[in-house]
Amino acid sequence: MIDPAAFAALLCDWCLEVQPGQQVLIATTTLAEPLLDALHRAVLERQGWPLLRMTPPGLAADFYHHAGPAQLDGYPPLELTEVESIDAWLRVEAPANTRALAGMDPALITRAAKARAPIQEARLALRWCGTQWPTPALAQQAGMGEPEYAAFLSRALFLDQPDPVAGWRELSRRQAGLVERLDRAREIRIEAEGTDLRLRVEGRTWINSDGRHNMPSGEVFTGPVEDSAEGTIRFTVPSSPRGVEVQGVELTFAGGQVVDAQAERGQEYLEAALATDAGARRLGELGIGTNPGIDRPTGSILLDEKIAGTVHLALGRSYPETGGENVSALHWDLICDLRSGGRLTVDGQPLDPFGVQ
Amino acid sequence: MIDPAAFAALLCDWCLEVQPGQQVLIATTTLAEPLLDALHRAVLERQGWPLLRMTPPGLAADFYHHAGPAQLDGYPPLELTEVESIDAWLRVEAPANTRALAGMDPALITRAAKARAPIQEARLALRWCGTQWPTPALAQQAGMGEPEYAAFLSRALFLDQPDPVAGWRELSRRQAGLVERLDRAREIRIEAEGTDLRLRVEGRTWINSDGRHNMPSGEVFTGPVEDSAEGTIRFTVPSSPRGVEVQGVELTFAGGQVVDAQAERGQEYLEAALATDAGARRLGELGIGTNPGIDRPTGSILLDEKIAGTVHLALGRSYPETGGENVSALHWDLICDLRSGGRLTVDGQPLDPFGVQ
Repeated sequence: MIDPAAFAALLCDWCLEVQPGQQVLIATTTLAEPLLDALHRAVLERQGWPLLRMTPPGLAADFYHHAGPAQLDGYPPLELTEVESIDAWLRVEAPANTRALAGMDPALITRAAKARAPIQEARLALRWCGTQWPTPALAQQAGMGEPEYAAFLSRALFLDQPDPVAGWRELSRRQAGLVERLDRAREIRIEAEGTDLRLRVEGRTWINSDGRHNMPSGEVFTGPVEDSAEGTIRFTVPSSPRGVEVQGVELTFAGGQVVDAQAERGQEYLEAALATDAGARRLGELGIGTNPGIDRPTGSILLDEKIAGTVHLALGRSYPETGGENVSALHWDLICDLRSGGRLTVDGQPLDPFGVQ
Repeated sequence: MIDPAAFAALLCDWCLEVQPGQQVLIATTTLAEPLLDALHRAVLERQGWPLLRMTPPGLAADFYHHAGPAQLDGYPPLELTEVESIDAWLRVEAPANTRALAGMDPALITRAAKARAPIQEARLALRWCGTQWPTPALAQQAGMGEPEYAAFLSRALFLDQPDPVAGWRELSRRQAGLVERLDRAREIRIEAEGTDLRLRVEGRTWINSDGRHNMPSGEVFTGPVEDSAEGTIRFTVPSSPRGVEVQGVELTFAGGQVVDAQAERGQEYLEAALATDAGARRLGELGIGTNPGIDRPTGSILLDEKIAGTVHLALGRSYPETGGENVSALHWDLICDLRSGGRLTVDGQPLDPFGVQ
């Protein structure tokens, strides 16, 4: 089991750095009650105000079943006021069913997400963090028993270490070295079985993702130059965007754009995603996973993209802080495992993300 | 079992009259999840915005154990902003332990309540309602098994009737007749074994409490003239203010003020309550219970004070809408059962609350 008090301390002291007087909003489901109790105490002990937003796990699906047009195309004014009033926002994923939205019309989900964009944007301007509390559904998705999954997540969070905050500080330091090396890079080449892709990254900013926004994290990422992708990449880690299973995606790029797209499973979803808008056929992100505690895919993108020995590319929107300029309603992370003979080359020199000190 | 959908419909359509576009905040514990799910749907179906505030049941006690001075003497600014932004506020009592605060220093509770008074006042200016979802703790407090308690509460809520809203409309109509009669009253005399108390009520307003603010309700009440109480009253229904058990309270009044106070159990609490402030020794409320579905005490003041055939008096603060002028930090409802030979007399004429049409 994960110790809720230790997890809460990590979230308060490393991810959010809760200060006296701060209003900390915590959104999760009833399944994360042990962590929520611990967070309530931890925020109070740091003289902050815990503001709890716990919902039954089936609520999101229920919304789509019962909402009318006014609800789908709007949001409660209080929700925006709330984001404008708080100091930090923590989202704890704790689903009862990771496929709860699989049968929902994707257009409905996109419509509601579009209407709620102002809330989402305001949240990202705050101190925020997204994390996960282990549930039977997450263990099932990972193909594990519950104790096994909790132990796995504990390693991913560095909660198996005597001082988790020190563990994250050390990862941050090592990633800073990696970022320093990559800031001088012009071209990245990704090679693996079925994969040979070149991307340009000169002038772009690499971000050290060390657990402040994602817990666990462990990646460095940037936005590649929009017209630079040339070649083919095979994404060997399955992906479940919005609960739809997509496997064995292979993309070929020319002049930065997808010119061929095949999926062993989920071809229809893949084609629909690429047709979202013009930016959906270009890359918005190149990330390199570095978390040594995450050693296998579990079906959670929060975890999978951080696997040490993988790279991920996102179709669609880039993060402005990277200097990336791709605009799209899509941001779909796809992961390529390099651990069986793959490699990364930076301007002709092999890069071992762990070798960089 | 109580049907959550029927209960939610009653709360939306009778108690709160939810309108399209309204923001309806619902505060409860995780134990009321079935009702919360139903309320979420019901508010959406009425084109309103359900704003859910569900907390673990142990949270209130936890607050006192972990809060520092800044928390005890303040409140999160968002909480007041929230009340100022919403249209309706629903509180669903659903405790895991009705005595959770019994060991807490009452001074701490009073201190936090005082600091949070602006929030409480702002809530009362809204459309608001307080209700209850049956939990094992509430059944235990009532000395019942859980199915028995749920059936009892169902009758109290008129959810055993084919059209609960029609049931409340009919109760409202009957109480309006009672209020019409009482509006002409000058003196009320309460008689029962060990009880003979006279109160003046001329010039005061009687309130028809028909389930808009309390669900269940079923009472009419006013604020008696502050210096009018003369005589003795024995409160035969036990009371558990803040989780402290108090039984067999007997009060003697002269010139509106308590001149003698005895309790079979809880004498210390009684004396401390009377010493709260000057207004604590005077009466702030006289209420007459009329709910035919509530036929026995259960230890919940929400229900007990509505028992058809009882009257209740509150020591302390009166409700301004009654014309009552007593000011106090205390408002403690005490109940006298008239069903075994007791009676109410209005200006010398016996009053049968049910006989008034």
